[in-house]
Amino acid sequence: MKNITASFAMTALATESEAQDRKPAAPAAVYEVAPGLGHFTDDILFGEVWERAELTPRDRSLITVSAIVSTGRTVQIGAHVRRALNNGVTPAEIGELITHLAFYSGWPNAISAVMETKKVFDERCVAPVTDSDAARIELEVSAEAARTASVNAGVAPTAPALADLTNRVLFGDLWQRPDLSARDRSLVTMAALIAMGQAEQLPFHANRAMDNGLTNSEASEVVTHVAFYAGWPRAMSAVPVLKRVFETRPGE
Amino acid sequence: MKNITASFAMTALATESEAQDRKPAAPAAVYEVAPGLGHFTDDILFGEVWERAELTPRDRSLITVSAIVSTGRTVQIGAHVRRALNNGVTPAEIGELITHLAFYSGWPNAISAVMETKKVFDERCVAPVTDSDAARIELEVSAEAARTASVNAGVAPTAPALADLTNRVLFGDLWQRPDLSARDRSLVTMAALIAMGQAEQLPFHANRAMDNGLTNSEASEVVTHVAFYAGWPRAMSAVPVLKRVFETRPGE
Amino acid sequence: MKNITASFAMTALATESEAQDRKPAAPAAVYEVAPGLGHFTDDILFGEVWERAELTPRDRSLITVSAIVSTGRTVQIGAHVRRALNNGVTPAEIGELITHLAFYSGWPNAISAVMETKKVFDERCVAPVTDSDAARIELEVSAEAARTASVNAGVAPTAPALADLTNRVLFGDLWQRPDLSARDRSLVTMAALIAMGQAEQLPFHANRAMDNGLTNSEASEVVTHVAFYAGWPRAMSAVPVLKRVFETRPGE
Repeated sequence: MKNITASFAMTALATESEAQDRKPAAPAAVYEVAPGLGHFTDDILFGEVWERAELTPRDRSLITVSAIVSTGRTVQIGAHVRRALNNGVTPAEIGELITHLAFYSGWPNAISAVMETKKVFDERCVAPVTDSDAARIELEVSAEAARTASVNAGVAPTAPALADLTNRVLFGDLWQRPDLSARDRSLVTMAALIAMGQAEQLPFHANRAMDNGLTNSEASEVVTHVAFYAGWPRAMSAVPVLKRVFETRPGE
Repeated sequence: MKNITASFAMTALATESEAQDRKPAAPAAVYEVAPGLGHFTDDILFGEVWERAELTPRDRSLITVSAIVSTGRTVQIGAHVRRALNNGVTPAEIGELITHLAFYSGWPNAISAVMETKKVFDERCVAPVTDSDAARIELEVSAEAARTASVNAGVAPTAPALADLTNRVLFGDLWQRPDLSARDRSLVTMAALIAMGQAEQLPFHANRAMDNGLTNSEASEVVTHVAFYAGWPRAMSAVPVLKRVFETRPGE
Repeated sequence: MKNITASFAMTALATESEAQDRKPAAPAAVYEVAPGLGHFTDDILFGEVWERAELTPRDRSLITVSAIVSTGRTVQIGAHVRRALNNGVTPAEIGELITHLAFYSGWPNAISAVMETKKVFDERCVAPVTDSDAARIELEVSAEAARTASVNAGVAPTAPALADLTNRVLFGDLWQRPDLSARDRSLVTMAALIAMGQAEQLPFHANRAMDNGLTNSEASEVVTHVAFYAGWPRAMSAVPVLKRVFETRPGE
């Protein structure tokens, strides 16, 4: 009986929050404390940016969750995981995005993200995620050889364990896991690097993202979208980096 | 009856916390866990830095709240919003500071700041903030033309939507809102950039701050104050940037 | 009677959590939301990295707590303070690590860390920490003279108060406090700078760490360990900095 009541309550909650997620709007408290923020949230962020066709809502959700998880904004994770589910990101993809970001933004962010996501999964009665049994992602051989050579030359002499883990675990395991596509991993990594202010790793990953299918127009829009979730300065610092990447890719 | 009791309780709380805010001191837990931190908090941070005449307590509150909101230190927001109110920052100015920082440090920080600030406003029975009906702030024409030209040349070719939003929304709307003065917006932006470690945008905004009335001595003191709220390294990295700004401003 | 019950409960809690800390493992929620993260946590992070002999468990705890406190990952502090106690870090050392990081990553992080640590100390019935009465740490005279000269030349003309506080409070007081050894302060500072992405201050502090007894191999391992707690990009950006430090130290 208790379970049935709880289940009704949860369904009600889920339905209500799904409805809210489909028509996102600034909460009332925003208008009471910072009416300007209400205006910009509803007229610009939700009314304009999320509606732009340059990226799908699913891509925008991947980027948003990545920016929020990688900058440790724990309080905001639940709402955006809900919206990601509504926008077609699967629970398994959300789990693997978090796994991916454990490496790119640290374990504490990932563990906190798991705990917040667990609440949303429970609320929506999502079954426990299991590892995909699809074939592993094959990395492009020559690009992977170049990457390994670069790590062996640039990292191994100073930090041999870090070089080994990079080759063996990050690229030898994580990036090959079929639970999130290569293109989505790149999208998520780019968003995290911009949000964290890590311009140094952006050329490699922006190039990789475009090798994995991201267009110039989508890459630009990632920067624009992250501006709203990690601040204008992070986006502005990414622009010249992206400009150089565009210039060095022939015929694009 | 319930409401009256609640109201008494809130008044008591508010009075107590106001008294605490006026004479800030390290909580007992600090001395029990980290006695050194108690010493430095009471003897240096509150006993010396907050007392320095180079910035008013109101300015120090704007800087502190900005550093805390822009670095996402949610737990600490309430205490510093209380102190900001005590130091003469109005509720509307706090709301607009948060709106401003949504753009400069991302929506998640701003939304979390709203929620924490709402609790303080409720505790102090602050009425909902409304948009100011004062005249919009006029941006200096030649400086604004130069800024637009720079964005159109440096950002638009790579990220056209970001350039458009920068011109139309950030400078065409946000910076013109009369709810926070140009000088205070600059102060808050500088503090956020230093706290976030975004030295790249600091020359533009330090110059703008000084165009908006901040003196050399105040600008230096912003760096010193932020050292305590975002760490010494952030402040140290801002020093050479500020040095070059001082050198390029004739006659100051 | 109530106290006795509470005390039993606390002991049970403490024993249970100590046992968990000794054999760290990913919580069940991790496997349910992100099974890949469970795999990498148990097989790589706990199964391999924490077991590597290049750093003691005590050092790894100092580095981990430093990375977590300095990046403001409040939710994760308690678990790692517990493990640090288990790995031989004393309560007084934890308190002083937090004091040290107030200066290197800002007061808000330190105050939040105190509040989380207080809960662990209460749970384990740790007595309030008191200042050490050991002799103060003597800084090496010529190195300290060089450091002071550098601050007076590079910082004082632009930010005189920051220069004064650096000389008088940071190096004239904090770094001389006997509550945490010079070598451990350096370890903690290096970890914080890497985790915060502050490469600019890393050459000075990596050199200082090695002057304070850290070996090349340990310094490399700090970078590798921090990769897991603040993300790969922070570690990768620290590698070329550390490389140059190694190259400029004769005979090592």
